[in-house]
Amino acid sequence: MHVVFTLYEGMTALDLVGAYQVFAIAPGMRVTLAASSAGPKRTDSGMVIHAEAALHEVQDAELIVVPGTGQPHLPLADRVLLDWLASASGKARWTSSVCTGALVLGAAGLLRGRRATTHWLALERLREFGAEPTRERVVFDGTLVTAAGVSAGIDMALVLLAQIAGPEVAQVVQLGIEYDPKPPFNAGSPATAPAPILQLATEVLSKAAPSLVGAPH
Amino acid sequence: MHVVFTLYEGMTALDLVGAYQVFAIAPGMRVTLAASSAGPKRTDSGMVIHAEAALHEVQDAELIVVPGTGQPHLPLADRVLLDWLASASGKARWTSSVCTGALVLGAAGLLRGRRATTHWLALERLREFGAEPTRERVVFDGTLVTAAGVSAGIDMALVLLAQIAGPEVAQVVQLGIEYDPKPPFNAGSPATAPAPILQLATEVLSKAAPSLVGAPH
Repeated sequence: MHVVFTLYEGMTALDLVGAYQVFAIAPGMRVTLAASSAGPKRTDSGMVIHAEAALHEVQDAELIVVPGTGQPHLPLADRVLLDWLASASGKARWTSSVCTGALVLGAAGLLRGRRATTHWLALERLREFGAEPTRERVVFDGTLVTAAGVSAGIDMALVLLAQIAGPEVAQVVQLGIEYDPKPPFNAGSPATAPAPILQLATEVLSKAAPSLVGAPH
Repeated sequence: MHVVFTLYEGMTALDLVGAYQVFAIAPGMRVTLAASSAGPKRTDSGMVIHAEAALHEVQDAELIVVPGTGQPHLPLADRVLLDWLASASGKARWTSSVCTGALVLGAAGLLRGRRATTHWLALERLREFGAEPTRERVVFDGTLVTAAGVSAGIDMALVLLAQIAGPEVAQVVQLGIEYDPKPPFNAGSPATAPAPILQLATEVLSKAAPSLVGAPH
């Protein structure tokens, strides 16, 4: 199975790397990191990660993974990326996103009439792309798979891996990355976070990443 | 607070990026990605991540984070890294590791007589460095903080952030990265994984990364 991650300037590092780590160590998976042009891409926190291929060189993607971004603007001006997604998705077995990667899929026209999720703060923005916002950690709608914010990419990748390679392989990978999470607080979801934390996070994130709440694309 | 991640050829991407994402979006934290020489470093799965500075340029690390590796050999021949760790650790507020990063700290002479953890499969190797293996997800021993395998870096970073900046900041960051984990299986720890999964993972990992179980450094 050929897994293609679509990189771009301003992506969020953990959106990419959480899912990447799962597929990269799973047997039988070939992973390609591709972008509109090959070369170094700067994430929204500054870390630079290399795209090893240009998207036009990638013809046989079977699983597409689109990371999100917390930067002020979504990469919706990246026509090479959007056009590639629109085309490659039709041939792929699975098309998936992490966090606001779902909005990128939406801009590529891939969410119309579909159930989908994204970062909790951006959930309502899915409607702009004709999707039905769904407050779950990982949402399957046929061959479309979307994950909630940032760290949810790890869960999505394990669920997908179980479908692709079977639950035994997924469990071995889970044990390999010792994914036995023990968050120190129960604040990882707007449903569980204390009200003042939710309010503060909403203020901070809306300011840092207005694209989450609906600023111009 | 200046957070310095020590990169090296063959590091595991998620060991680095899980903790990186937490500190990179937290207010008041300055993050530097440093290695024995600046420039691109290839992880053990192929992803290339840039070190933006050489370690000799970094004089004021307050929190040091050393990622681990699943490659056959630990970076114990990287004298620049080990010497920098031995020196910088004495001046830092905290010295920490993710996964087999603990063995790197051990090789730098920083674990003698200390309680520490690492990837479950490598736990007994801590004794070679005079440490007391401790089967917990995040282990504090004074200013030394060690995390279990790969994904444990996220938990460690949140626990450390709560100590450094307070529980409110840590919870806002947890909500920001929507860290409300929902692993599809209860297989992330040798204590919970089904016996055949544990056996298979042990076989696969011992072969892929003999450094975990005690092959020559």
